[in-house]
Amino acid sequence: MTSNNSKNSFVGCEFTLYPMSDNFVDIILSALDEVDTSTVWMETDDVSTCIRGKMVHVYDITQAIFLHAAKTGKHVAMSGTFGVGCPCDTTDDVFLSEEDEPKNISKIKEINQKAGCKFALYPMGEKDYIEKIQEQVNLSKHRGVEVSPTHYATRLDGDVKDIFKTLHESFDQVQQAVSHVTMTFTISANSPSNQ
Amino acid sequence: MTSNNSKNSFVGCEFTLYPMSDNFVDIILSALDEVDTSTVWMETDDVSTCIRGKMVHVYDITQAIFLHAAKTGKHVAMSGTFGVGCPCDTTDDVFLSEEDEPKNISKIKEINQKAGCKFALYPMGEKDYIEKIQEQVNLSKHRGVEVSPTHYATRLDGDVKDIFKTLHESFDQVQQAVSHVTMTFTISANSPSNQ
Ligand SMILES: [Ca+2]
Repeated sequence: MTSNNSKNSFVGCEFTLYPMSDNFVDIILSALDEVDTSTVWMETDDVSTCIRGKMVHVYDITQAIFLHAAKTGKHVAMSGTFGVGCPCDTTDDVFLSEEDEPKNISKIKEINQKAGCKFALYPMGEKDYIEKIQEQVNLSKHRGVEVSPTHYATRLDGDVKDIFKTLHESFDQVQQAVSHVTMTFTISANSPSNQ
Repeated sequence: MTSNNSKNSFVGCEFTLYPMSDNFVDIILSALDEVDTSTVWMETDDVSTCIRGKMVHVYDITQAIFLHAAKTGKHVAMSGTFGVGCPCDTTDDVFLSEEDEPKNISKIKEINQKAGCKFALYPMGEKDYIEKIQEQVNLSKHRGVEVSPTHYATRLDGDVKDIFKTLHESFDQVQQAVSHVTMTFTISANSPSNQ
């Protein structure tokens, strides 16, 4: 069984971007156009987009797509699931880039964007899963975001880059201990009820 | 520990409705206005809405909200997580209606709406979770929907009412065997890329 720290392990994200605008097609296409997605395998259908590759690129790309859409000022949300190590998974539809440096940081460095996010970690097949979830919720209080509980998730408030850093670190730490992990997230920017 | 079949057990759903329209506020408010949500506890913030109560009502209400929004003909999506039996959960913020009959069926009976949906089941703290997931994927092939695999979920295509029936039955059957279960879903109607 491939260790999660090996060169061959990979992460995926199945996500959808929701611009609350009549112009949603253009907003989605423009955001994708601004983002370098060459470091992952990618496929889109009418329901969602799936990307698979090295963890660093999967988080880099989802963050960049969200930020480029949110910078339009429109109310934009994104929702998805990150996954690693499902026993049913295959090595089909994956691209493991030679590169280890995320490619989209320089273009989003100047974008300051506040957002609200709800995320939930699912360490699968694991007796002590509650402990592992709780550990990341507690650690997130030191990741530059405000942390509060909701009934089925944990809420994070702050800058989008700190939110994605929190998602990335939580996921990374749990998958070092548990081979099959998924993490769901919903992030919302420029909501008329949160200005 | 309360059995899941007891009068006191309850289910929740944290979900967001995404109308891809400049008019999204009106579409959301109109859909909510059409739906009888008196059978559950409900709270909304800028990121999502949470409802908690009897399973029958939680599925009835999420289905009705989605259908009333989708009938506008706009591209509408909904994404969320159903949950039951989390060890951390409390009995706060729950309403257990005396009623057992769903209240929104008559108004949506005539709405025929095709959609695409991706869902994933998470039976928590359970060694044989893959088996339980696979069982529901197989049973779904006989629930009036087309079933196909995706990397991090299972795809269902068909009428919205058959899709929600599939989500409801899958969730119900797994929670009878596993006390803590969550299920994520994303459903999309009237997408320009799926007409
Ligand atoms: Ca591009």
